[in-house]
Amino acid sequence: MKKIVLSVLLFTSIIYSQSNDQQMLKNIYNYSLTKSNCYSWLDDLSNKIGSRMSGSVGAEKGVAYVKAQLETLGLDKVYLQEVMVPKWVRGEKETAYILDNKTKVNIPICALGGSIATSKNGLTAEVIEVHSLKELETLGIDKIKGKIVFYNRPFEPENIDAFKSYGNCVDQRYYGARDAAKYGAVATIVRSMNFRLDDFPHTGAQSYGDLPKEQYVPTAAISTNAAELLSKKLKENNTLKFFMKLSCQTFDDVISYNVVGEIKGFEHPEKIMIVGGHLDSWDLADGSHDDGAGVVQSIEVIELFKKLNYKPKNTIRVVLFMNEEFGSRGGKKYEELSKTYKENHIFALESDAGGFSPRGFSFECDGVNFEKITNWKYLFEPYLIHSFTIGETGSDIGHLTSAKIVKAGLIPDSQRYFDYHHAANDKFDAVNKRELELGAATMASLMYLFDQYGID
Amino acid sequence: MKKIVLSVLLFTSIIYSQSNDQQMLKNIYNYSLTKSNCYSWLDDLSNKIGSRMSGSVGAEKGVAYVKAQLETLGLDKVYLQEVMVPKWVRGEKETAYILDNKTKVNIPICALGGSIATSKNGLTAEVIEVHSLKELETLGIDKIKGKIVFYNRPFEPENIDAFKSYGNCVDQRYYGARDAAKYGAVATIVRSMNFRLDDFPHTGAQSYGDLPKEQYVPTAAISTNAAELLSKKLKENNTLKFFMKLSCQTFDDVISYNVVGEIKGFEHPEKIMIVGGHLDSWDLADGSHDDGAGVVQSIEVIELFKKLNYKPKNTIRVVLFMNEEFGSRGGKKYEELSKTYKENHIFALESDAGGFSPRGFSFECDGVNFEKITNWKYLFEPYLIHSFTIGETGSDIGHLTSAKIVKAGLIPDSQRYFDYHHAANDKFDAVNKRELELGAATMASLMYLFDQYGID
Repeated sequence: MKKIVLSVLLFTSIIYSQSNDQQMLKNIYNYSLTKSNCYSWLDDLSNKIGSRMSGSVGAEKGVAYVKAQLETLGLDKVYLQEVMVPKWVRGEKETAYILDNKTKVNIPICALGGSIATSKNGLTAEVIEVHSLKELETLGIDKIKGKIVFYNRPFEPENIDAFKSYGNCVDQRYYGARDAAKYGAVATIVRSMNFRLDDFPHTGAQSYGDLPKEQYVPTAAISTNAAELLSKKLKENNTLKFFMKLSCQTFDDVISYNVVGEIKGFEHPEKIMIVGGHLDSWDLADGSHDDGAGVVQSIEVIELFKKLNYKPKNTIRVVLFMNEEFGSRGGKKYEELSKTYKENHIFALESDAGGFSPRGFSFECDGVNFEKITNWKYLFEPYLIHSFTIGETGSDIGHLTSAKIVKAGLIPDSQRYFDYHHAANDKFDAVNKRELELGAATMASLMYLFDQYGID
Repeated sequence: MKKIVLSVLLFTSIIYSQSNDQQMLKNIYNYSLTKSNCYSWLDDLSNKIGSRMSGSVGAEKGVAYVKAQLETLGLDKVYLQEVMVPKWVRGEKETAYILDNKTKVNIPICALGGSIATSKNGLTAEVIEVHSLKELETLGIDKIKGKIVFYNRPFEPENIDAFKSYGNCVDQRYYGARDAAKYGAVATIVRSMNFRLDDFPHTGAQSYGDLPKEQYVPTAAISTNAAELLSKKLKENNTLKFFMKLSCQTFDDVISYNVVGEIKGFEHPEKIMIVGGHLDSWDLADGSHDDGAGVVQSIEVIELFKKLNYKPKNTIRVVLFMNEEFGSRGGKKYEELSKTYKENHIFALESDAGGFSPRGFSFECDGVNFEKITNWKYLFEPYLIHSFTIGETGSDIGHLTSAKIVKAGLIPDSQRYFDYHHAANDKFDAVNKRELELGAATMASLMYLFDQYGID
C-alpha cells in the first residue's frame, strides 16, 4: 500500500512538474512574441549604433548601450570586464579590377580581417586559380611565385546544414594567405563564403599563422559573381592581370569590454549558467544577424525571467562578448577571470548563428546529459523546435573549461545565413521580428529547464 | 524453420526497402540542391513574365511558359484545361489620405479583389473603427450609416503558426464590405493582413456575398503603419475625414487554362497522384512566393522523377491551377473534368504557403493513413522535415472529392510569409534558392513514398 501511495505521489509530482514546465514555456513564448524588447534593442544597435568592429567607436558605443539596457532590467549586478582587443582598420574602400587585353572589369572586393595593405598604388599581377590549400603544393613555387593566388572552391550545395558547407570551405579564407605566401604569391583573393551568386564580398578572419611578418601578403575576398567571372576569363586568357588596392592597417591593441549582467541564484548562487552572444561585428554593416541577434536574444532571456517573475535556482548571467570575430579575446578573458575567481559554470548557451527561425540546439555534453535533454523535446514541439544534436556550440563559450559544464548553441534555420554573413547586407531589415523573438523564447526555455533540473 | 526463413525474408525485405527509400530521398535532395531548374523557372516567371492576375496578359504568358517548360521534360502528356475566369482590373493606382483639420496625410492603399470603384472624384467620409464584423451589430445603422468602416483587428502575435493569425483575421477583409454595406457604410478599409508594421497595403479576395449589386461599396486595404496612424488620429479626432479613390473594374469572364503534365503509371495507370500550385498571382507583384514557388516546385517534382529515371507505379500529374486567388475556378474545373472522365485520384499535394524552408506537411486523411505517414518521419529527419499534422492542405486540391483520396499541403516556415503575401514586395528576391529547392525535394520525397506504398 505504501508503495502504491509513493508511486502515486511520484507520478503526481512528475505530471505536476510537466504541466508546470509546459505552462512556463507557454508564458515564455507568449511574452516574447507579444511584449519583448529584443527587436527594438536590435533596431537601436543596428540603426543607431551600426557596425561594432572591435576597437572601433561603434564597439564602444555598443558596450555603453547594452550596459545601459541591462541596468534598466533590475538585475542583481551589471558590470564590465576589461579586455585588450586588436584594432584593425579597413581604411579607404578597396578597389579591384580584371585587366584583360586592356579591358578593365571592376570587381567587388574587401580586405580580410588583419590583412596588410597593398602599396599605395595597388598591386597588379597575374592570377593562378586553385581550389584548395593542398593544390599549392602540387603547383609548386615555380607556378605560384609573383602571382595572386585565387581560391575558388565553392560551397557544396548538397549539404542540408549550411554551416557544413562553410566549414568545408573556410580554410581558403583563413589560411589562404599564410600558405600561398610560402610559395611566393604576392597576394591572395578568395571567393566569398556564400552559396548565392551575388555581388557582395564577404570579409572574415584570416591568419598569417607563424609566417614572419616580412612575408605577409595582402588578402581579400571577392564576390561570388566576380569569382565566377574571373574563373571564366582565366580559362580564356590565363595571363590576364588582376589589380587590387587595399589600404587596411593594424594598430596597437586597445581597451574594450565584455558586458555582464546577472541574477543571483536563490538555491545555488555559486552555480553559474550563462547565455550570450558577441557584441562586436564586422565593419561592413550593422551585423544584425552576426551577432546583433544573439546579443539582444541573450538580453531577452534575462528580461523574460525578470518580467515573468521567475527566480532562478542558479545564478543566471548574460555575457555579451567582445571581439569574437577577430581573435576571440572576450571569450578568452571571460574564462581567464572565471578561473581567477574559481567560478563554477554548469551551463553555457550561445546564440551566434543568426536571427532566423529557431530549429533546435546543438550540445557539447556527455551521453547522460544528452539523454536528459532529449527527454525535454516534447516540451518544445508546440514551438516547432525539433533538432537536438551533438555538435559545435559557440566560439565564445568554447573557451570555458569548467569540469562538468554543458554547452549549447542555438540552431536557427541556416539556409539564408551566408547570404548576409560578414557582408554589407547584414542589416536590420534582414532580420524578421518574430523569428528573432522565437529564438529568444527558445533560448529562455532551455535556460529555464537547465535551471530547474540541473546537469548530471 | 519455415517460419524463421519467412521472418528473415520479410525482415530483409523491410530493411532493403528502408535503405532503398533512404537512398532515393538522398538522390532527390541531392539533385534538387545541385541541378534543379526550379529557381531559374521562378526567375523567368517572376522577372520575365511578372504578375499573373487571372484574366490578364501575364496569366496568359504564364500558361504558355509553363506549358513550354513541361514540354521539354519528356512527359507522356502535356495539355491545357480550358476554364472561364473572372477578370477584375485595378486601373489607375489608388490614392487615399486622412484629412484632419485641413492637414492631409497620404495613406498607402489598394483595392481588394472584386471591389467596385469609387466615383471618379473619389469618396470622402468620416471613419468608424471596428475590430470585428460582430461589432457592426452593436454599433447599429445609426453610427455606421454614411461612414467608412475601418476594420483594424491586428494579427495575434502569440500564435506560432502565422496562418492561424491570418485565419483569425481575414474575415474582416473577406466579408468586411458585405457586412458593413448592410448598415449603410459608404466604403470599407481594412488593416493589411500582416504582422509587421510596414507601408505595404496587401490586397486579397473579398466577397459581396448575396448583397444586391446596388448595395456594393468600395473596399480596400491600407498598410499596417497606416492603420496604426489612422487609429491614433481617430482617438484624437473622431470626426476626421478619409478620402479614397479606387478605379477598379470587373469585366466579363475570359478564357484561361489549367496546365497539366503527366507521367503514366506503369503498374496502376488508372490511379492518379497530383502535385500542384497555382499559376495566377495578384497584380501588385510577381507573386514569387504566392504561388510562383509552388508552381516551380511542382514542376520540379516531375523533373526530379524524370531525371532520376524513376518510373512511378501510379500516374503522376503536375497541375498548375488558374485563378486560385480569386474564385478558384481552376480547382473547380479540374474536379469537374475529373468527374466527367471518372478519374480515380488517390493522392494530391499542393504547395501554396511560400517558398520558405520546408518544415513538414499537413494532411487530410483518416487515422490509418496518417499512421502510415508518420512511420515515414525518420526518412525525412536528415532533411530537417519534422512536422506532420492533420490540417488544411490547399485550396485548389480542396475541390477534389475522390472517395479515398489523401491530401497534403507543404508546410514551409510560416514566419515571413505575411510580410509578402498579396503585396508589392512578393518578388523574386524574397525567395531563397536553397529554401525553394529543399521544398521541391521534400514534395518529391512524399510523392515517391505514396507512389511506392499507396494509400490504405
